[in-house]
Amino acid sequence: MSPPSRRLTQQIDFIVAVDRLKQVFRQTRLIDDHRPENDAEHSWHLALMAVVLQEYAAEDVDIARVLAMHLIHDLVEIDAGDTFAYDDAGQADKEERERVAAKRIFGLLPADQRASMLALWEEFEARQTPEARYAAALDRLHPVLLNYHTDGSAWRRHGVRRHRVVAVNRHMEDGAPELWEYARRLIDSAVAEGKLES
Amino acid sequence: MSPPSRRLTQQIDFIVAVDRLKQVFRQTRLIDDHRPENDAEHSWHLALMAVVLQEYAAEDVDIARVLAMHLIHDLVEIDAGDTFAYDDAGQADKEERERVAAKRIFGLLPADQRASMLALWEEFEARQTPEARYAAALDRLHPVLLNYHTDGSAWRRHGVRRHRVVAVNRHMEDGAPELWEYARRLIDSAVAEGKLES
Repeated sequence: MSPPSRRLTQQIDFIVAVDRLKQVFRQTRLIDDHRPENDAEHSWHLALMAVVLQEYAAEDVDIARVLAMHLIHDLVEIDAGDTFAYDDAGQADKEERERVAAKRIFGLLPADQRASMLALWEEFEARQTPEARYAAALDRLHPVLLNYHTDGSAWRRHGVRRHRVVAVNRHMEDGAPELWEYARRLIDSAVAEGKLES
Repeated sequence: MSPPSRRLTQQIDFIVAVDRLKQVFRQTRLIDDHRPENDAEHSWHLALMAVVLQEYAAEDVDIARVLAMHLIHDLVEIDAGDTFAYDDAGQADKEERERVAAKRIFGLLPADQRASMLALWEEFEARQTPEARYAAALDRLHPVLLNYHTDGSAWRRHGVRRHRVVAVNRHMEDGAPELWEYARRLIDSAVAEGKLES
């Protein structure tokens, strides 16, 4: 057996390093046992949603690119940590923290993959392509679903009110308008059921 | 707002139901904190590996189909539980338990998606297409990597020996021969380093 190539060694090092995503915890809770969800679980759930809900994408999408975006979109949080969507202070310096993290984490890969992963992550963040808009819409729908089905856990713990939930999530309409309509209805139900402050 | 369609309601019910995958625990441990890994985390990690390691697939693959396979391949374990690869008794009735589970879980979806998801899961299990062989190869490489990087935790806890690890994992060669060569080397290193019994 010849030794593995430097390329394969770099790729495996990246795969081993990103195991840490399983230890980055979010504000959302699991539907059944209410423990905090981690970023690896969230990324899996999003990607599966992208497959099942593809017919609701606002425009035709290359589903493989959407899935790749979901799989990598939170890797920067291994270094930068999860920033709660309703944390204004955290949101202010999020971009800079995540940019530094992206350089290190994608930097573990061979140069061609480092460049393509970084470009894919930036595309997701910018929401200027059909794939990015659809991928980002699901990234907003997912915590709304989980919050609704855990009695509004993260909303209530942080005192988030209805107008903030609508403001933060309404770009969902650009990527998947019918899913935004579904989410709006769920937000209204959450208020009616005491899971979210009006 | 008109009420959501029956179709969308079924799709969301499926998405909510499969949140349970995050509570199906495996024998493998996380690299850093050594807690058991769950199936949602494993599925995410596999799918990301499929993107990064695509150049090692034995044949050309439709990567979107590989990713979809990874995202759904363990859903049956929500009902059937995880069966350790080296548990011969468990392997004996695994197929029947998982078939019943597949009917219930994919049965939550609208009929067309139920049929296509079931077909995709069966394709993965049968390993008769390039996509299934590549997807299955990564499903074997992943626990070898995690075991190696956690001091052989699952192997040692269950007294699994080298020849069993080679026998259970060697079909990796059909889907990704260079990755099997990498895995064989890792298995040899594990023996040399006392992480796996010879």
